[in-house]
Amino acid sequence: MSDCPAIDPPRLGEPYLLTPGPLTTSYAVKQAMLRDWGSWDGDFRAMTAEMRERLVAMLGDGHEAFTCVPMQGSGSFSVEAMLGSFVPRDGKALVLANGAYGQRAAQALAYIGRAFDALDKGDYLPPRGPEVAARLAADPAVTHVVAIHCETSSGILNPLAEIAEAVAAAGRTLLVDAMSAFGALPLPPAEVPYAALVSSANKCIEGVPGFGFVLARREAVVAAEGNAHSLCLDVHAQWAAMEATGQWRYTPPTHAVAAFLEALRAHAAEGGVAARGARYAENRDVLVAGMRALGFETLLADRWLSPIITTFFCPADPAFSFDAFYDGMKARGFIIYPGKLTVAESFRLGHIGQVDADVMRQAVAAVEATLRALGVTDPAPPAAALAERAKLGEAA
Amino acid sequence: MSDCPAIDPPRLGEPYLLTPGPLTTSYAVKQAMLRDWGSWDGDFRAMTAEMRERLVAMLGDGHEAFTCVPMQGSGSFSVEAMLGSFVPRDGKALVLANGAYGQRAAQALAYIGRAFDALDKGDYLPPRGPEVAARLAADPAVTHVVAIHCETSSGILNPLAEIAEAVAAAGRTLLVDAMSAFGALPLPPAEVPYAALVSSANKCIEGVPGFGFVLARREAVVAAEGNAHSLCLDVHAQWAAMEATGQWRYTPPTHAVAAFLEALRAHAAEGGVAARGARYAENRDVLVAGMRALGFETLLADRWLSPIITTFFCPADPAFSFDAFYDGMKARGFIIYPGKLTVAESFRLGHIGQVDADVMRQAVAAVEATLRALGVTDPAPPAAALAERAKLGEAA
Ligand SMILES: Cc1ncc(COP(=O)(O)O)c(C=O)c1O
Ligand SMILES: Cc1ncc(COP(=O)(O)O)c(C=O)c1O
Repeated sequence: MSDCPAIDPPRLGEPYLLTPGPLTTSYAVKQAMLRDWGSWDGDFRAMTAEMRERLVAMLGDGHEAFTCVPMQGSGSFSVEAMLGSFVPRDGKALVLANGAYGQRAAQALAYIGRAFDALDKGDYLPPRGPEVAARLAADPAVTHVVAIHCETSSGILNPLAEIAEAVAAAGRTLLVDAMSAFGALPLPPAEVPYAALVSSANKCIEGVPGFGFVLARREAVVAAEGNAHSLCLDVHAQWAAMEATGQWRYTPPTHAVAAFLEALRAHAAEGGVAARGARYAENRDVLVAGMRALGFETLLADRWLSPIITTFFCPADPAFSFDAFYDGMKARGFIIYPGKLTVAESFRLGHIGQVDADVMRQAVAAVEATLRALGVTDPAPPAAALAERAKLGEAA
Repeated sequence: MSDCPAIDPPRLGEPYLLTPGPLTTSYAVKQAMLRDWGSWDGDFRAMTAEMRERLVAMLGDGHEAFTCVPMQGSGSFSVEAMLGSFVPRDGKALVLANGAYGQRAAQALAYIGRAFDALDKGDYLPPRGPEVAARLAADPAVTHVVAIHCETSSGILNPLAEIAEAVAAAGRTLLVDAMSAFGALPLPPAEVPYAALVSSANKCIEGVPGFGFVLARREAVVAAEGNAHSLCLDVHAQWAAMEATGQWRYTPPTHAVAAFLEALRAHAAEGGVAARGARYAENRDVLVAGMRALGFETLLADRWLSPIITTFFCPADPAFSFDAFYDGMKARGFIIYPGKLTVAESFRLGHIGQVDADVMRQAVAAVEATLRALGVTDPAPPAAALAERAKLGEAA
């Protein structure tokens, strides 16, 4: 997309963060934190109101039935708040897991004492619509299905549309962890039915970390009264206080909110979800092509690659070590991310934040230079990793 | 204290925040947020380690037995995390309440299903050592006592030393909400025994909001394993992850942490807890003297006034309205805070943050000018408020 606005490169000699949040934000976003706000004051209440409206509108078709409930804490706090508030004490959740974040949702349900079951696809295989339908048919006790939009631990883009269809057809309620996807991948509730999704400030909207938010059907929020297992993580109570007073129930992260508002305005100026998603998709395409040209292999086949983050196998070459590779990339201006697979050594490169195709080309050049410095001549993965990957082809 | 370093006044035309957090921070603290950090990176792990060490050392005598567990979210999240993690499922808490924050601790216990009882002193009367001792003698089921150091809703400084003594004498465990006091009022565990306290980034250490922290005896943290009602608010799990990896368990508010580290260094440079407390006490003395000279009355007698925030009765004069007073003060450069009493109309002026005696004099001048503009000639409170206050004299 040659007509994308130029991104704002990091200053002060800091590296690019090729990580899935915290990520590289624009200087303007950070500058918005150069003043203090009283959380009770009308000026800050107006900022909260604008933020909530912009987030609801970003849902697209069908957004009118939704409300926005920001929640202090990291993104996981919003996931736990969503689960504890929307799954009633006598409900049962089916978690569609294929990585760390699906597992974390299950762990949260275990902590808060909600019945649940998991459809666990292992490290990265996608949960498909028909198998979700089968599980729901087999277990009428399930009231809610929990799905991860982009499972950031492998980078897989899960097939939300067919999952949502299966859930709706079975008359159950869908809750979505869209942490790393919201703002770059559309999920219009008019087409993909769900009751609530969560995301956070420091993902595709390119704010700084400090809070998350729940976007939920207003009727689901109203019905959530009294469900929550936690005072602070009570979505209904946070919403009721905000509707009544315009304030956050407890002290908001005022500076992170100011930064986020700046980021929301920049998101709109860039062209909204479509343009943001297109920039990230181009980032991925340039990065993956460049890495493959060097001899790297991606964990996933093209159809499952998300525009958010991509997992690459570590080279089999004994001259390669992740720590040395990390340090070499950092010295060249890029912070990378370790892998999270149990089957094979891997690393991840995020392509969200204030990065564009040019930065991706620089990143590939930095990878090449780092390999040379380490004395890695062939970045090909071990045969076992490729054999493992071949299973994906069969199953998917 | 004429040898205090000059405070750093707000820029960009923004008002002073005479509020108990978010508060006015220095420009240097905010400038520390002008870059992005990778949360996995060694540089950020070093920042987290330095922060934890500085906070533990700030406890003073007896700090060696303590560890620091930062927690994402507002201060209330840390309070709930402390309660859910340290009060075991078969434990029972006695909450010493004299205002909104004591009540909130009780509310959190109710949410998370821990047995509790309250010694509720109403809006502002202090819980005294002997009555705590009597309650503990009468109820052997109580395992933990929850006390608020400075009850920010009235500004009262609760008598922690005599409370801690009573709790220790009865062989029970003390948990302290020191949110608005830590960093300005000493609470050395060698002299005042307790198992844990909580505070947050945006109070007396003068950082920006975004996280809190628990300072707890290491043995109490170890014993807390498996207690928590919430995945995210599990103090033991956060601590275990941090000890093992140097990282926060879930995405940290990197920018707020960077700002806080700058604030911690400034706190040390000013002279630590003693100097910070002395500046705030002088702020209070100047403010209270100035307001009394205008004809205002404080809710509390001098012996209960904290150096953090002071409650003043609203004038009985029908020309006074809080909203008009708020707007007039804001137009003159000061954001003030509403009262939280049930018995009488009141407002609060905080004296923490980057404010000093000069700023307090300017605030008093702004109050005088605002009253003149409103046509309030006598700021004396209604007789009923003074009658209510007289009870404090008897009871205290
Ligand atoms: C899909 C998904 N869910 C949940 C989380 C957890 O968010 P946080 O680290 O902010 O708690 C992440 C973080 O990357 C994520 O990608
Ligand atoms: C004593 C006390 N406890 C708890 C809190 C709650 O902190 P937060 O508003 O950050 O959740 C406050 C806030 O002012 C406080 O003063």
